[in-house]
Amino acid sequence: MELRKDPITQSWVIQEEEKSAALETDKCPLCPGHEALCPQTLYIQPLGQSNWQVRVVPHLRPLYRIEGDAQREAEGIYDKMRNLGAHEIVVEHPNHNLPLSRQSEEHVAQVLQAYVARCADLKRDHRFRYITVFRNQGMLAGQDLSHPHSEITATPFIPRRVGYELRSCKRYFEMKERCLLCDIVRQELSQQVRVVERNDWFVAFCPFAPRVPYETWILPIEHHVSFEEDLVNWDRQLLFARLLRSILHRLESVAPAYHLVVHTSPNFAVKTDGDWQSLAEDYHWHFEIMPILPSKSKSYSLKEVYYNSLLPEMAAGELRNVV
Amino acid sequence: MELRKDPITQSWVIQEEEKSAALETDKCPLCPGHEALCPQTLYIQPLGQSNWQVRVVPHLRPLYRIEGDAQREAEGIYDKMRNLGAHEIVVEHPNHNLPLSRQSEEHVAQVLQAYVARCADLKRDHRFRYITVFRNQGMLAGQDLSHPHSEITATPFIPRRVGYELRSCKRYFEMKERCLLCDIVRQELSQQVRVVERNDWFVAFCPFAPRVPYETWILPIEHHVSFEEDLVNWDRQLLFARLLRSILHRLESVAPAYHLVVHTSPNFAVKTDGDWQSLAEDYHWHFEIMPILPSKSKSYSLKEVYYNSLLPEMAAGELRNVV
Repeated sequence: MELRKDPITQSWVIQEEEKSAALETDKCPLCPGHEALCPQTLYIQPLGQSNWQVRVVPHLRPLYRIEGDAQREAEGIYDKMRNLGAHEIVVEHPNHNLPLSRQSEEHVAQVLQAYVARCADLKRDHRFRYITVFRNQGMLAGQDLSHPHSEITATPFIPRRVGYELRSCKRYFEMKERCLLCDIVRQELSQQVRVVERNDWFVAFCPFAPRVPYETWILPIEHHVSFEEDLVNWDRQLLFARLLRSILHRLESVAPAYHLVVHTSPNFAVKTDGDWQSLAEDYHWHFEIMPILPSKSKSYSLKEVYYNSLLPEMAAGELRNVV
Repeated sequence: MELRKDPITQSWVIQEEEKSAALETDKCPLCPGHEALCPQTLYIQPLGQSNWQVRVVPHLRPLYRIEGDAQREAEGIYDKMRNLGAHEIVVEHPNHNLPLSRQSEEHVAQVLQAYVARCADLKRDHRFRYITVFRNQGMLAGQDLSHPHSEITATPFIPRRVGYELRSCKRYFEMKERCLLCDIVRQELSQQVRVVERNDWFVAFCPFAPRVPYETWILPIEHHVSFEEDLVNWDRQLLFARLLRSILHRLESVAPAYHLVVHTSPNFAVKTDGDWQSLAEDYHWHFEIMPILPSKSKSYSLKEVYYNSLLPEMAAGELRNVV
């Protein structure tokens, strides 16, 4: 595999050179007792091989490879590089049949701890520009292993949507000297029409211009740039876990599948006073959840311009009423 | 319906307020003899209601409405406007069962003439920033009416991908003082590995970083900013029609469906010396064709970063060999 840059959109495309064989296993490689099927452990809690609650392992069919450097090079006017990066699986629970939303608050907080630990660790590697934590729930979301799990990728480039986000936040900050997402949070909390649920530290709402019905974001109410620097103590992890679990419950009552994506600051690091610091002080970490509803194939007109058939004000009302 | 702007990606979302009813007709509204089902004619060739070969009518379930102005306004820090615009159907042939690729070269050239005429007409309306001509071929591409047809939209904003394209072309021109797409054409013609077919004036190739297997672009070899200003005489229309028809034939042998999109300059107009002129001199019009292969639902990792399982060098070779 190699990465090729689209000179038009400046986004990277993973280009496979030969089809890889389908992953065939008759027993679940993520279940306790089958650890030999993915022997390398990147994170385990509690420590020690037996009786683990959360475990992180390298992906069995990784999109990115950790060895070496990116070997960025030109091909005439085009740009390409190796598929350098990391691709990991967060095994969320030993129980094969217990999805994230049905796990205890404490357990979900432990999963968040694993996200934080892996993000922080991967950010120490300055070959990587961005760490993405995400989970595909359900067949329609492309979930490939049935055991409850999330995925983490580390890439030598910033993925498209995050890039647009960083640019908008930077421009807004330059113009207003305020964080765009802080302003969004304040307006949502004051208008109250799109808020689904909040607690002392975090708020969940349907965004003003959602890409899909029931799209929901969860943000810290106060300004925090990086997920992995903010969610470090147990109180905060637990309160976020409570809200996340509740939101997943609500969404699962209206949609059969979803993508969940953590948006955190990129790995632009500069050395100041002996410490590595993030450049993106105008950014505000958050979770984005995109429910996936069964639908027919889309016309081009609805690919280039998002089209949403449900008002976020209605969606939020419906989600608030889920018991 | 209204348009809402995503403050993060700066792209517009069409927000439906209530679900519109499904379009139910027991007879094809685009067939000759049924003109009363879509009575308003925007373009017809040859002139006169009977015996037409190509006809353009307003869309039966339009995404955009032509009346009034955009009523751009704020909602707190958010931006919204009416779904001002145009949405038209190009009926490509009187024969319900003759797809574009099986129509004669001369007939395809007539369809191109209709595109050109409608683009030029809609560009005269300075409420619109961009005119998109596209066609959805096949169920997987979201084709809704079975009669061979294309669609045209005029919007008060520039669609996402075209916006990225314009930005890249502008930056490249600023740096190199050359058109990005001219450089791409020159490299493709000299490398010869991704070219599918060419003639004296136009070239078709698989791009270096394709989003999907068999993605193909068709460009004028010489620099031309706007489709509707370039493809005005019959010789050029006919030569382009010949290449387009051949490329569609090749693609239909490997893919059951595709989106075809005309990329032309935007409707940024400035008055100079009494004439309206385009600002985007660094742009180069082209057709993009994105074949759609049946596939399972996509993981999030393959939505944020495009993933292509077939090298464009192999795809071009395969398409060249189609007889």
